[in-house]
Amino acid sequence: MRIGAIEAGGTKFVCGVGNELGEIEDRVHFPTRRPEETMENVIAYFRDKRVDSIGIGSFGPIDLEHSSPTYGYVTTTPKPGWSGYNFVGTLKSVFDVPVGWDTDVNAAALGEATWGAAQGLDSCVYYTIGTGVGVGVYTEGNLVHGLVHPEGGHILTRRHPNDDFAGNCPYHGDCLEGMAAGPALEARWKAKGDTLPEDHPAWEMEAFYIAQAISNVILTLSPKKVILGGGVMKQAQLFPMIRAQVGSILNGYVSAKSIVSDIEHYIVAPKLGDNAGLCGALALGVRALDSRTNVRSSIQ
Amino acid sequence: MRIGAIEAGGTKFVCGVGNELGEIEDRVHFPTRRPEETMENVIAYFRDKRVDSIGIGSFGPIDLEHSSPTYGYVTTTPKPGWSGYNFVGTLKSVFDVPVGWDTDVNAAALGEATWGAAQGLDSCVYYTIGTGVGVGVYTEGNLVHGLVHPEGGHILTRRHPNDDFAGNCPYHGDCLEGMAAGPALEARWKAKGDTLPEDHPAWEMEAFYIAQAISNVILTLSPKKVILGGGVMKQAQLFPMIRAQVGSILNGYVSAKSIVSDIEHYIVAPKLGDNAGLCGALALGVRALDSRTNVRSSIQ
Repeated sequence: MRIGAIEAGGTKFVCGVGNELGEIEDRVHFPTRRPEETMENVIAYFRDKRVDSIGIGSFGPIDLEHSSPTYGYVTTTPKPGWSGYNFVGTLKSVFDVPVGWDTDVNAAALGEATWGAAQGLDSCVYYTIGTGVGVGVYTEGNLVHGLVHPEGGHILTRRHPNDDFAGNCPYHGDCLEGMAAGPALEARWKAKGDTLPEDHPAWEMEAFYIAQAISNVILTLSPKKVILGGGVMKQAQLFPMIRAQVGSILNGYVSAKSIVSDIEHYIVAPKLGDNAGLCGALALGVRALDSRTNVRSSIQ
Repeated sequence: MRIGAIEAGGTKFVCGVGNELGEIEDRVHFPTRRPEETMENVIAYFRDKRVDSIGIGSFGPIDLEHSSPTYGYVTTTPKPGWSGYNFVGTLKSVFDVPVGWDTDVNAAALGEATWGAAQGLDSCVYYTIGTGVGVGVYTEGNLVHGLVHPEGGHILTRRHPNDDFAGNCPYHGDCLEGMAAGPALEARWKAKGDTLPEDHPAWEMEAFYIAQAISNVILTLSPKKVILGGGVMKQAQLFPMIRAQVGSILNGYVSAKSIVSDIEHYIVAPKLGDNAGLCGALALGVRALDSRTNVRSSIQ
C-alpha cells in the first residue's frame, strides 16, 4: 500500500509517501505560500506517486464536520488566501482516492497512538507547546472533533504566585497559551527560551502552567498516555518538573498505577520525534483507506 | 424488548424496567445498604421481569476496563462493604443477559444523548453539581472511560476575587468540587443553598466557578451540548449567569454558531429531568443488547 501524507503547517508544508507500517519512504518540504501556489507544489509532488489514499494534518481552524457544506475547508485563519479555502476538495478534484482530514495535533495524536508513544492504546492526549499551544485528543479509539475541534491550548490556568506577566493571547490574555507558549516565555523573560539555562526560574514557572493543564485533562478524560511535543518541550528538564507538579496537584486522587507509580512512562515525549506530524498524516491516510475498505466489504 | 435499569447511587438505588424508546414502565427504589442486602433487593426485583439486558449506572469509582480481572467491580469507595465488590459478576451469576456498566454520570450523558437534551448528537458533556461534582463525557458516539474514568469535578479553577473560602475537597482543597459543590456552598455561606435568595452573591460566585469548568471542557473537547444537572442546578437563575460568563471567558474564540449566538440552547438543563439517571441506565442496557446483537450478526 502506498499512502500519501501532508503535514500542512502555517509556515511549512511537508509532503511524503509511506506505508501502513508507518515507514516514510520519501518526503519533500516547501514554505507555506498562498493556497494556489502551495497546492500546486502538493499536486506536483503526488502526481506520479500513485498513492492509494492521502492523509492531511492541517493547521486550523478547519471544518471537520462531514455533513457540513464546507467540510474539508480551512475556516477563519488570518493567513492570506487560506480563509475559506477548500483544501480537501481541491485535492480530490485531482486525485480520486480517499482523503483523511484532521487537525495537525489530532494527526500527531493518531500517529503516536498508531506507531509511537501510545502504540496499542485506545486513548492519548497530544500537546504541542511551541509558537502556540495545541491539543490533539484521541479517546476510545477515535479522534475527537465535536462541534469544531479541541482548542485546549486556551484553557484558563491559575497564575504562578511570582508571575506578573500579563499574558499575550489576543483572545484571553493569560490563558495557557498566553502564559506558556514560546512567545509568552520570550516576552516574560526578554530572551528566547533556548538561551535560558536549565536551572532558570522560567522552567519551574513553565512546568507550573503545563502541569495544571495536564492535571485538568487527566481529570476530564483519563487518557492512557499524555504526550508533550513542540519546540518548548525540547527543554527536556521540563519533563520531571511537570511530572512532579502533576503528582502534587492530583494528590493521589486518580488511583491509577500508571499515574501514581509510573508517571515517567505516562507523561512522555513523542516517540516519533520530528516525524510525529508526517506520521500522523500518514496514519490519517491509512485510516481513510481502511474505512473505505470496511464500507466496501460491508456492502458486498 | 424489555430492558432492566439500575441507577446505583450512594444513598439510594432505583431499579426499573423500560424499553428501547426510553419509556420507563415500572420502577422501585430502596436505600443503599451493604452490598449483599442491596443486591438481594435488586435481584428480587428483576427475578420475574424477564429482561433482555440490564444497564447499570453506578456510583464510583468503578472498574470499566474490559480486560481487567476486576471489570465490573466497585473499587476503592469508603462506603461499607462496597470496596472491591463484584457488582456486574453478582448480577450475571443470576441473570444470563448482557449487562451494560458505566458510571452514573456517563449513564446520564448517554441517556441525554439518546432521548434527552442531546438527542441525535454524537457528543455531549453532562455535569451533576450536587453533593459532589461529577462529569460524564460522550464523544464521537462513545462514552469516555480511558485509564479509569473522567473525574472532571476535581479540576482546578481560578479563585473568585471576593472568595476567601478555603475549599473543602479532602484531596485538593479548592478544586471545582471543593469550591462549588453543595457542601462547599453551605460551608461558605453558613446556609443551605436552597435557603439563599435568587439575588444572593452566592450565585454569581457559583456561576463563576462552573463557567470556568465549562469553558475549559468546551476548549478541550468541543462538545455539541453541555448539560448541567444535580441539586445545585435546580437554582435556575444560575443558567443565564453561567452562559454569560462562559461567553465572556471564551471571548469569541470558538466561532461556533451554537456558542456565539445560541448559547441558551447549548448550555442546558437535563431534558430527562429526574429520570436522567434511570433513563441513562436504560440506555446502557439498550446498548449492551445492541452490541451483543451486532456481534451475533457479524458472526453469522
